[in-house]
Amino acid sequence: MNRRELIAGLAAVAAHSALPGEAQRLPASPPTSASLRVNPDRLRAHLEALSVYGRPVGGTFADGVSRTAYSDADVAGRKYVLQLLRDAGLEPRIDPAGNIWARRDTPGADRALQPIVFGSHIDSVRQGGNFDGDVGSLGAIEALQTLSEQHVATRHPLEVVVWSAEESNYGSGLSGSRAAAGDVEPGEMERVQDGVRKADAVRRIGGDPERIAEARRAPGSFAAYLELHIEQGGTLNAGGIPIGVVEGIVGIDDYEVTIRGFANHAGTTPMPARQDALVAAAQLILAVREIVTSQPGRQVGTVGEISVSPGAPNVIPGVVRHTIDVRDLDAAKLARLGEAIRARAQEIAQRTGCEIEITKTGSHAPALTAPPIQAAIEHAADGLSLRHTRLPSGAGHDAQMMALLGPIGMIFVPSVAGISHSPRELTRWQDCANGANVLLQTVLEIDRT
Amino acid sequence: MNRRELIAGLAAVAAHSALPGEAQRLPASPPTSASLRVNPDRLRAHLEALSVYGRPVGGTFADGVSRTAYSDADVAGRKYVLQLLRDAGLEPRIDPAGNIWARRDTPGADRALQPIVFGSHIDSVRQGGNFDGDVGSLGAIEALQTLSEQHVATRHPLEVVVWSAEESNYGSGLSGSRAAAGDVEPGEMERVQDGVRKADAVRRIGGDPERIAEARRAPGSFAAYLELHIEQGGTLNAGGIPIGVVEGIVGIDDYEVTIRGFANHAGTTPMPARQDALVAAAQLILAVREIVTSQPGRQVGTVGEISVSPGAPNVIPGVVRHTIDVRDLDAAKLARLGEAIRARAQEIAQRTGCEIEITKTGSHAPALTAPPIQAAIEHAADGLSLRHTRLPSGAGHDAQMMALLGPIGMIFVPSVAGISHSPRELTRWQDCANGANVLLQTVLEIDRT
Repeated sequence: MNRRELIAGLAAVAAHSALPGEAQRLPASPPTSASLRVNPDRLRAHLEALSVYGRPVGGTFADGVSRTAYSDADVAGRKYVLQLLRDAGLEPRIDPAGNIWARRDTPGADRALQPIVFGSHIDSVRQGGNFDGDVGSLGAIEALQTLSEQHVATRHPLEVVVWSAEESNYGSGLSGSRAAAGDVEPGEMERVQDGVRKADAVRRIGGDPERIAEARRAPGSFAAYLELHIEQGGTLNAGGIPIGVVEGIVGIDDYEVTIRGFANHAGTTPMPARQDALVAAAQLILAVREIVTSQPGRQVGTVGEISVSPGAPNVIPGVVRHTIDVRDLDAAKLARLGEAIRARAQEIAQRTGCEIEITKTGSHAPALTAPPIQAAIEHAADGLSLRHTRLPSGAGHDAQMMALLGPIGMIFVPSVAGISHSPRELTRWQDCANGANVLLQTVLEIDRT
Repeated sequence: MNRRELIAGLAAVAAHSALPGEAQRLPASPPTSASLRVNPDRLRAHLEALSVYGRPVGGTFADGVSRTAYSDADVAGRKYVLQLLRDAGLEPRIDPAGNIWARRDTPGADRALQPIVFGSHIDSVRQGGNFDGDVGSLGAIEALQTLSEQHVATRHPLEVVVWSAEESNYGSGLSGSRAAAGDVEPGEMERVQDGVRKADAVRRIGGDPERIAEARRAPGSFAAYLELHIEQGGTLNAGGIPIGVVEGIVGIDDYEVTIRGFANHAGTTPMPARQDALVAAAQLILAVREIVTSQPGRQVGTVGEISVSPGAPNVIPGVVRHTIDVRDLDAAKLARLGEAIRARAQEIAQRTGCEIEITKTGSHAPALTAPPIQAAIEHAADGLSLRHTRLPSGAGHDAQMMALLGPIGMIFVPSVAGISHSPRELTRWQDCANGANVLLQTVLEIDRT
């Protein structure tokens, strides 16, 4: 991954596309496009205005939001977003999955070029914050509005998308973008949550569950998909770095571990005679951490859930069940980590006299961002004199579904203290504006190449 | 602890008590007393007959018993035991706590001597076995009946006791023996379980809760208390040793541990930035085992219960709570183990960035058996050519309450595979008979001293 080479490559392509013959056919971007900036006050005002939809009764912006997908708050928030798009001179449409799309064609633009798509989501978790999704959605609208106001022509059509139901509900998340990628799960529309069928929920936001297959976008139907998002982790905040260039969305391997020892009296069973399933689990929990941290890289491994049976202070644990969640950008590394954990588990089983069974319960492939788009983001940040770093996204995003169809890129801005999915979630206004400016400049950068 | 010295001492005392002047005042034990044996078939028949009270409907002896204290099955089982005592020529009485007592005075015995008391309990846990308590209670009756049938005179009065409510109920166990030791808890008789006040439950078995204080025995009011019991652990069974000489009932220190880390996203939080409460707990669980096993002795330490918050596969554990149960015969060692665990917890807290709080939630002092009684048991076993070993009792017994009032001794017989509190609990008939014979000979041994 040689960043300088990539930037040089993009610059060469940009120079090529600016050949006289080409320039002739396109309305040239005004010479000021590199100095184009979003309106930070307007972006903030929009974020604050959106925050009232799902705000706790009597609360303030700082009390966060519960704008869960398909809820009244979601419907109201989407209505607000639709109005923002119209105010920006666009004609939004809603696809059968409830995703909001708005396209801007520069008259006379290159009809051979696919659109550059950018956006995010506005639904939240229950008791979530006002930045997860919102910054990327309203930042995208702000970037598009800025281009329109400044009459900046682009060679590519531009499309803003506000995905529906990104946060987990009805048993899975990324609902709108999965539909766009053709990944609607069997029976998904028949699922029921809080007494409401998903099909009816999708109708509430203007979708059409009978025609959900038509929400699918064809592979290769966009030149690039860009998503601005808060980091939801603490790396940028800890490093004082305003812009993160996402290398990809990590793959996840989920395991369920069952350890069978022998439940026995905690008073009458001598230490050497024990088959203590929790002692074996403790060794495995530490082994997971050791295996994950013993090699370079940003892979993570977590044991987040554990249960013990019988589970009494005076009984030696007979059975322990716990999860393991391993994440990395590299699918081969994920597989190696899994193998190392299994091998260590067998050693622990022999040493402790317990049986250890490890079952893979889920696997999500990593979604890598396109190196030329990473380079374009870095170039944009450099042009704005914003420091940047590359990092993986440990959380899932709609971008990972778009990665199945074409090249993607993601821009991260800092989360104070790395907190997310919480009313305490906070991204500073300046960071929101920085992110929107990097998005705007990246769109222009890609448009030039 | 020099066993040979103690046996020699007891022999000397025995020789002294057989002085001509004394022998004149007492009906001499027949010369056959050392060869006296219980009737193993009758003991088995009694154990089988008692087992029907609380047996699962349609079950057999092998299906165990649910003769929980104060239940109909307990009332019926106690009625059976009262009849056995009458059949043995005794006149049982029930004290205000519901304990059954039956005394045998040899006419002309030494009125200055306090009685030798022996017995156990017949109540069981829910879905328990037919040996825990029953072997000691019916073994005691069998020993007394054998002495009566053989017209064996004893210098000491002999008393059989069948304790009420040994197994935990109404929030605590050892109910009858606690009353005998004057340790009725404040408000204990007002507690309600399954809709029944304990006072009413005690009345059901012939007790008198208003006069429960009168169940108390005066300190020094017995020469010795002996209890035959199944081991409820696997030491004797594993070693093929028929008789265990209990050194004491272990003390128990109970701790509750709260570990506070920081709950965070399992995908977005880099490994070095984590404060994972479960990783800290895993280190502490292994430290407990290491500290407990790193010095000689039979001390045990157990983490039997653990809970994690928030407790989701994709969230780093923020708070973990777990128990620690440490047991040993030596109170000073228990205190040292507790200190070592606290010290290690502080190291772990520093290393993991978590807070660890350890609270002592309970403490039961060890109850040591009297060395001369240990020696008498060993002498009795030697006389029966039964191998024996000393061992602690990791479980609680009525004997520990009697230890507050006078010298105690306990005889253990093997539990197959160490299983107890289970229908699978099993002590072989030969081992039951061996235990009753050792009890009988120990009574005679103590009577001579």
